Amino acid sequence: MRETITFPGQFPGAITEEDTLSAHAASPEATESLPAAVETALREFFDSRRPMTDAVAGTFTDATTALEAFVLRGGKRVRPAFAWTGWLGAGGDPNGPDAAAVLRACSALELVQACALVHDDIIDSSRTRRGFPTLHVEFADRHRSGGWSGEPAKFGESVAILLGDLALAWADDMVRESGVDAAAQSRLGPVWSAMRTEVLGGQYLDVSTEVTADESVAAALRINRYKTAAYTIERPLHLGAALAAADPDLIAAYREFGTDIGIAFQLRDDLLGVFGDPTVTGKPSGDDLREGKRTVLFAEALLRADATDRGTADVLRRSIGTDLTEEQVQRLRAIITDLGAVDEVERRIDELTARGLSALDTSTATETAKQSLRAMALAATRRTA
Amino acid sequence: MRETITFPGQFPGAITEEDTLSAHAASPEATESLPAAVETALREFFDSRRPMTDAVAGTFTDATTALEAFVLRGGKRVRPAFAWTGWLGAGGDPNGPDAAAVLRACSALELVQACALVHDDIIDSSRTRRGFPTLHVEFADRHRSGGWSGEPAKFGESVAILLGDLALAWADDMVRESGVDAAAQSRLGPVWSAMRTEVLGGQYLDVSTEVTADESVAAALRINRYKTAAYTIERPLHLGAALAAADPDLIAAYREFGTDIGIAFQLRDDLLGVFGDPTVTGKPSGDDLREGKRTVLFAEALLRADATDRGTADVLRRSIGTDLTEEQVQRLRAIITDLGAVDEVERRIDELTARGLSALDTSTATETAKQSLRAMALAATRRTA
Repeated sequence: MRETITFPGQFPGAITEEDTLSAHAASPEATESLPAAVETALREFFDSRRPMTDAVAGTFTDATTALEAFVLRGGKRVRPAFAWTGWLGAGGDPNGPDAAAVLRACSALELVQACALVHDDIIDSSRTRRGFPTLHVEFADRHRSGGWSGEPAKFGESVAILLGDLALAWADDMVRESGVDAAAQSRLGPVWSAMRTEVLGGQYLDVSTEVTADESVAAALRINRYKTAAYTIERPLHLGAALAAADPDLIAAYREFGTDIGIAFQLRDDLLGVFGDPTVTGKPSGDDLREGKRTVLFAEALLRADATDRGTADVLRRSIGTDLTEEQVQRLRAIITDLGAVDEVERRIDELTARGLSALDTSTATETAKQSLRAMALAATRRTA
Repeated sequence: MRETITFPGQFPGAITEEDTLSAHAASPEATESLPAAVETALREFFDSRRPMTDAVAGTFTDATTALEAFVLRGGKRVRPAFAWTGWLGAGGDPNGPDAAAVLRACSALELVQACALVHDDIIDSSRTRRGFPTLHVEFADRHRSGGWSGEPAKFGESVAILLGDLALAWADDMVRESGVDAAAQSRLGPVWSAMRTEVLGGQYLDVSTEVTADESVAAALRINRYKTAAYTIERPLHLGAALAAADPDLIAAYREFGTDIGIAFQLRDDLLGVFGDPTVTGKPSGDDLREGKRTVLFAEALLRADATDRGTADVLRRSIGTDLTEEQVQRLRAIITDLGAVDEVERRIDELTARGLSALDTSTATETAKQSLRAMALAATRRTA
């Protein structure tokens, strides 16, 4: 699972001086950026769990501290930003008495994300995340340096499974204890529920599509839809709208925008995974090809090759998921481009972006939120890293 | 993680004709036993998820059907039974308008348990559960028989991680959607939260105590307390009490009873794991010794051996967790008995049971609930299987 949208420069959802959290809000610093405000809320939440984990055992608190560190080095806080902006756009008042509670509920999305990443890293056997060892690797290292009995890798995975579960349980705690009122809790319930089922469904499809080698564009798009679009943009916006008791038309517009921009974002990610400049993306060039990721880009290339040139289709199938040289990556890039797959994916990105922006433009969201969301959409779909 | 208390004969918490679910309740059959009523509630909940999983993909629904089958073959429903009985004992009316909603909230405990078991089976590399392959083994088998690419075991574990997560998320959905009112939701929130953190803490301690080879009685008791007692009896009773808006004295009494009986239950389990008759327990004799389980029984034996006879202590340390013959198991049994560890554990069971029952007797719980809970306590601590 890729981390987040990397926004260039100042995060568009950042809280500006015009749009500050008031004295009611979680943070005392009124000009704090949204990511910083989210981190404060998360830090306070972790503090609130400590009496509970201490009561079980000090060593359990130590383990949860590793989870906290993982969550706190989390970057741009994209999901809380969409939720918060969704709330503002539906008339939420950042200076009102609910703002701090809403911010806490939005911040809980980072704990769902912690579970998703920690468990995904076990599933993908990933060794690093956010520039640090993944949690299962970290606990395997602790096992090794402690000279404990049994297998370090097994211990690391076991602890990471449990800490991922804890993050998911704590996400719920954070929503339940956010302070949003009972009516808002009932409104957010179905969205919260759908989001978690959808992301787990998307992850399941990702895992099963890989082993069954489903090469269809439809399968790749379906994973995009649930693992990325719904989970990263559509449902967070929907959650913010539900918190603000938005009307059904605005919710529909948000969901259209979120689905389209979310899929377009993932399509851009797919292009960068093959064509991205490693000096900008920070990842080895063509990494998706080596990892065997079943992207829409690759599916479009295969579809075209199967129709026109079986030899080229064979090359694609034999190459994907192997330890490719730089030269081989370059050759595959040329093939994918010549087949027209890049143009097709760019066309889809343009179409989705236009449709998503149009849904936003004609919605009843506030002008400020529209501006923010437009900037976030363009950052997500036009980025180079 | 051992499954549940096996109650002899009719489950004491069963709903009798005097104490039926009314027409308001989840089940149309007023004389249905509690386990059957819980299963009906679970089945209806799984039905309610299907539109959501179908929307993601039919193959995702197929995967969740395996989770449903796992949950539905779940046996005695011990945690819902304690929660339900806790609610009745605090004045909950089984014929009242809340009964069906309360039953649904209590039944959600089985989904937390599904997550705990599915993930624990990965952690313990267990191959069977409830007489069927564990979920990770089931999906590894599907992978093998489908002739899919990649490693079957890796695929099985990945899917089981995701389905365990789904069970945990759905447990929350089931509570949120149970129909208990907002005030009851706020009352149950902290109990629900504590229970999940405690069981995950207990599982963490279990995993870490095993690798650090902490041999102390205190470590074994702490695991008992959180992995078994709090999770199986104390918090389910507390949850039921919270749903009924019980007064603090009754809650305190329930928690005392639940902790004491829960620990005593686990101590009985430890004795059966070494001395149980395989024709009654259905498990190979001395299984806990072969598995290297760090029980209070074993810790008491080691403590005594270290104080009196280092040679015997060496035998215990060298034997635990190895592939013992029936003869070696018999020898270890004799050693553990001769050291006085069995008497000490029996003494603890008696003391805890007496203290727990006394807390119950002097409580304000209804007489019917006291009778049920007394029977459940004795079934849990005096059983032979």
